Amino acid sequence: MRSDRQLTFYHAVPSRSGTVHWMLQELGIPFDVKLLDIRGGAGQTPEFLAINPLGKVPAIVHGDTVVSEAAAICCYLADAFPDAGLAPALDDPARGEYLRWLFFSPSTIEPAFVDRVRQYEAQDSSQNSYRDWNTLVAMLLDVVGKADPWLIGENFTTVDVVMGATIRFGCMFDILPKDPVFNDYIRRIDARPAYQRAQEIDAPYFAATMAG
Amino acid sequence: MRSDRQLTFYHAVPSRSGTVHWMLQELGIPFDVKLLDIRGGAGQTPEFLAINPLGKVPAIVHGDTVVSEAAAICCYLADAFPDAGLAPALDDPARGEYLRWLFFSPSTIEPAFVDRVRQYEAQDSSQNSYRDWNTLVAMLLDVVGKADPWLIGENFTTVDVVMGATIRFGCMFDILPKDPVFNDYIRRIDARPAYQRAQEIDAPYFAATMAG
Repeated sequence: MRSDRQLTFYHAVPSRSGTVHWMLQELGIPFDVKLLDIRGGAGQTPEFLAINPLGKVPAIVHGDTVVSEAAAICCYLADAFPDAGLAPALDDPARGEYLRWLFFSPSTIEPAFVDRVRQYEAQDSSQNSYRDWNTLVAMLLDVVGKADPWLIGENFTTVDVVMGATIRFGCMFDILPKDPVFNDYIRRIDARPAYQRAQEIDAPYFAATMAG
Repeated sequence: MRSDRQLTFYHAVPSRSGTVHWMLQELGIPFDVKLLDIRGGAGQTPEFLAINPLGKVPAIVHGDTVVSEAAAICCYLADAFPDAGLAPALDDPARGEYLRWLFFSPSTIEPAFVDRVRQYEAQDSSQNSYRDWNTLVAMLLDVVGKADPWLIGENFTTVDVVMGATIRFGCMFDILPKDPVFNDYIRRIDARPAYQRAQEIDAPYFAATMAG
């Protein structure tokens, strides 16, 4: 049984690993945390580089299985702990849409955010994974606007964790435009006990990092 | 049964959809192709925008399920057609590593390629999903160098399609450094009948696009 294997979560606050922490709280499973002072160089120890040669969090070690990349970790955990109901089963027709958005978030939305923050505009938008900023924002407003109440339907899934965290980040840092469609969706996220629990647990570390 | 549902593949040559075409040939399943003249604006028709609002290939429609994003499509298809043996089962310990590289390719390697082509270097590498170019290349050389003979072990999997196509692209366009480690791995890919079949089928369309 997968649930018998020890689960270690490599975390830093604030960082992309916040998404995985929220996921773990949604799953309600036991795990050990290794909190890394990533800005102080804790990602560059031989021990951690053996887990992720890029020296970045999040990463998990589950038994002998190492997983990095926030979306990959969340995708893996949802399938490894199916009782939480955060992933459609392999034979559920919703599985295709589920995977679409899990990949879309880090490979299409995040590069668009990066370009936007850098104020980079491609001459030839056909080269961008996200085409162009306005097309991407219109698509996000459409997808999030149709959330009823969650991105792929009635049930909260890993898509809401992965893409939800990305949309929340985009709104918090004024990368995405202010729009009630995004705000209403984020309010639904903020109301989740698991999201609040992750925030509460991370709050002192967040304060310490900001003070340091 | 998923295999009873019609599978339509939206394709353009050359484009990222080549990866999905190769995947379909590896699976050996029946599918319909809709070849789009994407440079001629065929991605911008209302019919196609309903499938992918970004107007980009690849996309598939499988029964009522729409999937976009090359890696998501390949991940979906491998699970939908398990007889081909291209994905470790959900309870296989290799599943974590499998998902790690499927996500890593579009969300970490591809953005690094984009920055490299743009000759962009971040001041603060902690902001990059790939850290910095030299670290990423060293990691790829390590991962590909350990392929025995395929990226996650003895069996060819979807990781070799998704990450293999990306590494092949990086070498073909001189983004990645010339190195026997990459070349040997690409030679193994090129020897696969399914890869050759996809290339042969696409060759006339490729020639037509280049001539047009």
